[in-house]
Amino acid sequence: MKRSDRLVAMTNYLIEHPMELVSLPFFSTTYSAAKSSVSEDLAIVNKMFQQEGIGYLESISGAAGGVKYIPTYSNENSEVFVSNLCNRLEDPGRLLPGGYLFMSDLLGDPQMVRNIGRLFATAFSSKDIDVVVTVATKGIPLAYAVASFLNVPVVIVRRDPKVTEGSTVSINYVSGSSRKIQTMVLPKRSLNEGAKVCIIDDFMKAGGTINGIKNLLKEFNAKVAGIGVLVEAEDEEEDRVVDQYVSLIKINNVDVKNNHIEVKKGNFLNE
Amino acid sequence: MKRSDRLVAMTNYLIEHPMELVSLPFFSTTYSAAKSSVSEDLAIVNKMFQQEGIGYLESISGAAGGVKYIPTYSNENSEVFVSNLCNRLEDPGRLLPGGYLFMSDLLGDPQMVRNIGRLFATAFSSKDIDVVVTVATKGIPLAYAVASFLNVPVVIVRRDPKVTEGSTVSINYVSGSSRKIQTMVLPKRSLNEGAKVCIIDDFMKAGGTINGIKNLLKEFNAKVAGIGVLVEAEDEEEDRVVDQYVSLIKINNVDVKNNHIEVKKGNFLNE
Repeated sequence: MKRSDRLVAMTNYLIEHPMELVSLPFFSTTYSAAKSSVSEDLAIVNKMFQQEGIGYLESISGAAGGVKYIPTYSNENSEVFVSNLCNRLEDPGRLLPGGYLFMSDLLGDPQMVRNIGRLFATAFSSKDIDVVVTVATKGIPLAYAVASFLNVPVVIVRRDPKVTEGSTVSINYVSGSSRKIQTMVLPKRSLNEGAKVCIIDDFMKAGGTINGIKNLLKEFNAKVAGIGVLVEAEDEEEDRVVDQYVSLIKINNVDVKNNHIEVKKGNFLNE
Repeated sequence: MKRSDRLVAMTNYLIEHPMELVSLPFFSTTYSAAKSSVSEDLAIVNKMFQQEGIGYLESISGAAGGVKYIPTYSNENSEVFVSNLCNRLEDPGRLLPGGYLFMSDLLGDPQMVRNIGRLFATAFSSKDIDVVVTVATKGIPLAYAVASFLNVPVVIVRRDPKVTEGSTVSINYVSGSSRKIQTMVLPKRSLNEGAKVCIIDDFMKAGGTINGIKNLLKEFNAKVAGIGVLVEAEDEEEDRVVDQYVSLIKINNVDVKNNHIEVKKGNFLNE
């Protein structure tokens, strides 16, 4: 196969298999090329991925070595994306009763969701995550987007057990903002003991839901290695029960009466 | 920029922007290359996408022309994928009360979900879909996967309205298998009049849920241009209230007593 042909095929392969160690002999056999040619190809791919701001190839040497595509979004790309998102969220037409924001249009856009996933994956790619955990239902698309870049499974916490999940473990928790007692369940066979997880959700007010997930995860002896929320409500900061997290967007001064909201960048870009 | 560099960047760009018309001048400017070189690059990309079985580039000529990446999965890739899925589903350990199958592990694997999405997108890529519609919660990841390849938004039907969605339209429907009356809601601002939609869900027994979605969509004057279900239960075929659909997998002879299920390929591969 010619270099130009190989570069197209290898670029596609690496994009579809992020965070996965691919051996040089695999490429060599699949695209019938000498190892030295494959190495040169990979150097080109690596250079271009960095130039496009979509990550880099990590080389692991030795007999069990190869390359791994680490899909980290560049600071420049991230800045542009988050600013853009802020502008779209600032529209007062999004204000809903209770200080919530209408975001279904943004969360319904798969390109948008994929890019949000890319940003969180960038934040968590070095944390050796085994599983992405979210709670039904708004967090689901975001969790899958993150998981597709980290190349790990998704586990979904529910508020009601479903027959299609077999036996479950459940806990009760107090919702941070409404102070109501709620239930959360997770299928028993969904998580291995001691799994390293990251929690993804769309919105955090006082953090009661995320705290509930953390407590539920304790039942599985899982370790929470990261928490990512798309939007945090800054007004609730003092009552917050969750302290270590990454947010892309912060809203405050949600003034339903005067139809005004203030949208700022979250802490993601300070990291 | 050199050809080898451009090929990596263009491959990535096209994969991230399926079903989107990209003009030659865009590539020419972005990668500072003559239009004739860009045309040659695209011919290489097109050849390799077909060879890898991941689709092709459609050329649209004229002043408003360009290329569009159509992400259709080859028959060969589809066959392998569906056979593999059948094998994994045949495990009697998956049997749950009521003839349901435990599939959360498969539906929790983002690569698996992405490939399922690719297959449905292949079935519906010529149908000019505006929106992918699904019902919470199991269908959500599949719907996003399909939508990411068709490059259209996702709209989620719920069983209970949420404050974060504004005003909603609701209907009552009769669940096909349990004969219970249930409710479905869709936010008012989620769909434009006359939108062409495809409905995606994970499991179809008698088809009551999908029929309910169809009725709800009528309230929005939406046209259903395609229905895709991951698994259909063949036993229920005679009572089925939905007739035109694409399924990847068929299960029948679900025998909970003897712990046996029969898993076959769905109608997708006959199309």
